[in-house]
Amino acid sequence: MAQKPSIPKGTRDFSPLEMARRNYIFDTIRSVFALYGFNQIETPAMENISTLMGKYGEEGDKLLFRVQNSGEKAALAPEKGLRYDLTVPFARFVVQHKDEIQFPFKRYQIQPVWRADRPQKGRYREFYQCDVDVIGTAALTCELELIQIVEEVYRRLGIRVCLHLNNRKILAGIAEVVGAADRLTDITVAIDKLDKIGAEAVNAELAERGLSAEAIDRLQPILNLSGTNRDKLTDLRSILASSPTGLLGISETEQILDLCDTTGVRLDIMLDLTLARGLNYYTGAIFEVKALDVQMGSITGGGRYDNLTGIFGLPDVSGVGISFGADRIYDVLTELSLYPDKAAAGTQVLFVTFGQDELRYALRIATALRRDGIRTEIYPEPVKMKRQMAYADQKHIPYVAIVGGNEMEHGTVMLKDMTSGQQREVAIDQLKNNIL
Amino acid sequence: MAQKPSIPKGTRDFSPLEMARRNYIFDTIRSVFALYGFNQIETPAMENISTLMGKYGEEGDKLLFRVQNSGEKAALAPEKGLRYDLTVPFARFVVQHKDEIQFPFKRYQIQPVWRADRPQKGRYREFYQCDVDVIGTAALTCELELIQIVEEVYRRLGIRVCLHLNNRKILAGIAEVVGAADRLTDITVAIDKLDKIGAEAVNAELAERGLSAEAIDRLQPILNLSGTNRDKLTDLRSILASSPTGLLGISETEQILDLCDTTGVRLDIMLDLTLARGLNYYTGAIFEVKALDVQMGSITGGGRYDNLTGIFGLPDVSGVGISFGADRIYDVLTELSLYPDKAAAGTQVLFVTFGQDELRYALRIATALRRDGIRTEIYPEPVKMKRQMAYADQKHIPYVAIVGGNEMEHGTVMLKDMTSGQQREVAIDQLKNNIL
Repeated sequence: MAQKPSIPKGTRDFSPLEMARRNYIFDTIRSVFALYGFNQIETPAMENISTLMGKYGEEGDKLLFRVQNSGEKAALAPEKGLRYDLTVPFARFVVQHKDEIQFPFKRYQIQPVWRADRPQKGRYREFYQCDVDVIGTAALTCELELIQIVEEVYRRLGIRVCLHLNNRKILAGIAEVVGAADRLTDITVAIDKLDKIGAEAVNAELAERGLSAEAIDRLQPILNLSGTNRDKLTDLRSILASSPTGLLGISETEQILDLCDTTGVRLDIMLDLTLARGLNYYTGAIFEVKALDVQMGSITGGGRYDNLTGIFGLPDVSGVGISFGADRIYDVLTELSLYPDKAAAGTQVLFVTFGQDELRYALRIATALRRDGIRTEIYPEPVKMKRQMAYADQKHIPYVAIVGGNEMEHGTVMLKDMTSGQQREVAIDQLKNNIL
Repeated sequence: MAQKPSIPKGTRDFSPLEMARRNYIFDTIRSVFALYGFNQIETPAMENISTLMGKYGEEGDKLLFRVQNSGEKAALAPEKGLRYDLTVPFARFVVQHKDEIQFPFKRYQIQPVWRADRPQKGRYREFYQCDVDVIGTAALTCELELIQIVEEVYRRLGIRVCLHLNNRKILAGIAEVVGAADRLTDITVAIDKLDKIGAEAVNAELAERGLSAEAIDRLQPILNLSGTNRDKLTDLRSILASSPTGLLGISETEQILDLCDTTGVRLDIMLDLTLARGLNYYTGAIFEVKALDVQMGSITGGGRYDNLTGIFGLPDVSGVGISFGADRIYDVLTELSLYPDKAAAGTQVLFVTFGQDELRYALRIATALRRDGIRTEIYPEPVKMKRQMAYADQKHIPYVAIVGGNEMEHGTVMLKDMTSGQQREVAIDQLKNNIL
């Protein structure tokens, strides 16, 4: 019996047009990663459940998809789960293959991940992540290179962005100095609203959230920071004078900005003390990138971690990485109509024929064109011309080569430019030049 | 506590070298598909279990991986399963999106599939398939194009192959004429051994398998076919004279061979009556490709089907497709050492530095080189030169640009060719030309 076909909620099919656009994004990102010497790896869709459990907090554990063989008894707890992100499998990979890996290890990974989240607009149960990391060195040149990668990827895609920069050590320093280390989240949430609601309202909210009057008082100079990134860092240096951790964070941030200046980075970089990022493994610089011309959350984010591989038995390996959000980038490009006109790998010419003899004639010409690298289709049978032309139209094929008896006699085709609508008879050996 | 990291049995991590080689295969296949006007689609890793069940036979049902949310009770039967091949999801896609699709629909799809098979050498629980299909036309030009694609892909990869060609209608005709339609498998298995064990032994085996003396007798002319593909088809035409289906199969095969001649196909094509292929949805031409210079099963296979989408409610849509086995192609290329020397996207030059000033100097040059499209790395910190050089060595980076105080003074780098071992001082503005 016929089933009405559908796919699981939160998952997607990708049509040829969507794939062309997604490949445009992935290919752009991939080629920039390669320009900086990063190499691709892949890990299995399934990981042992023990690799995944406890790595994403209680909430994350609940969002894991579990996998079992059809043969297994339902009572048996499944031993495998689907990849939830690319970071934990990367840490597992580094530890498992540490003897084969050349450190510092510069890897990128572009693969789907699965989360049993409630599906909603822009949130899927299967989506791709594009992660790039250097592991095995604490050098801040790595932070620089990631910033340069962000600059180059978005330059190539034509998206104007701002990179928000902060440092976990600065945040720790603030919490120390304010004397409310456990209230870091409350503090950053409040600071975040400063522009919108003003200092007075922020202070009221902080009090409401249970911050002591003394702590609020100590926070005021931080709320009042202004000027350039350098100005803010200078002011912060005196505010955080009593916190060695905080001072280290400031120094790291200054060094990163120095490296950007040295290498002529033109990306809009903003020191953003409200940036905290949820993941608890970050220990140094943290980044988020936002598009300037469209309302959308962070489209790229990441940071420095000092002990990602510790949980798999390899402690104290420092690394830094960022992740590009392909789905959001897709939405930004769509909203701003920034896709290049030509689909990179679309058909360049379609042969349209009036009969079996013409079909054979066209097949021979098409074979030669393909040998010259021209992406060529032949409508597979000599059906009504209208149907063949409609096919070219709907696939946005720029040229149609029409073959009838006359053309066969002359050793030509009637080449129609589908954009201008003009057509003219072209000799076979001139076809290539007229299409390119 | 530290866990000893591992991955589920039958799955694999892919290292940078393996990924470079896999991408070489996928990129080659992909670009040939595009040359023939095929467009890429992707479908979700998870399908509804009802989409998958009953499509792969009883054995296949048992090999499905089932997926459940962590939150779901174990007692509930999982409603989702992992993709088992690309054909059933393709059929589901075509039916689900039939109103958006332009027919004939030429699609390709390169994605992993999962099977809970017992893992063994060369058999994995996660592996990629590369499928290319035309659906919505019965024209034999499609068979031709698939044959041309096979020819071009293996020409580009440098693998010498033979394409085995048969037709399900011929097989049906043989079974009809022999009067043992239900014994088709026994017959093809026996014919398959002809070369090895001779006609007498084959006949004995057929009798053992329960074929009547009369049927065996009628089969003899088929066992004795010899000569070229055309000779065999001519002989078959008289043997199968009483079977309209068989004759249609012969005619289709002749037309396909004619089209190959017309377009100058040079691929080694062998009419192979022992070729049956397991999948029961094939109805016309069937193909298998074998490498000539290495013992390996079929590395590409497929065929014509007339009702793939019927089970999802769209009957009588003819199509034809083939699937490239990436893992086996990988093994063939490895065994024959056919990978091109240069990894396509490997780093071209590594900067090695003696101190922080040199590092900054190198960062500026590297930034300019990348702007010129040269894949460039900088060792992230000025550690011992030996360690930096070892990094270049192990990543097979062809050039190292060494920067010390002298080079900074002169506005140069010491460029070392890692293949020849020679090094010479090169001005910054000459660096690009010396690397390319």
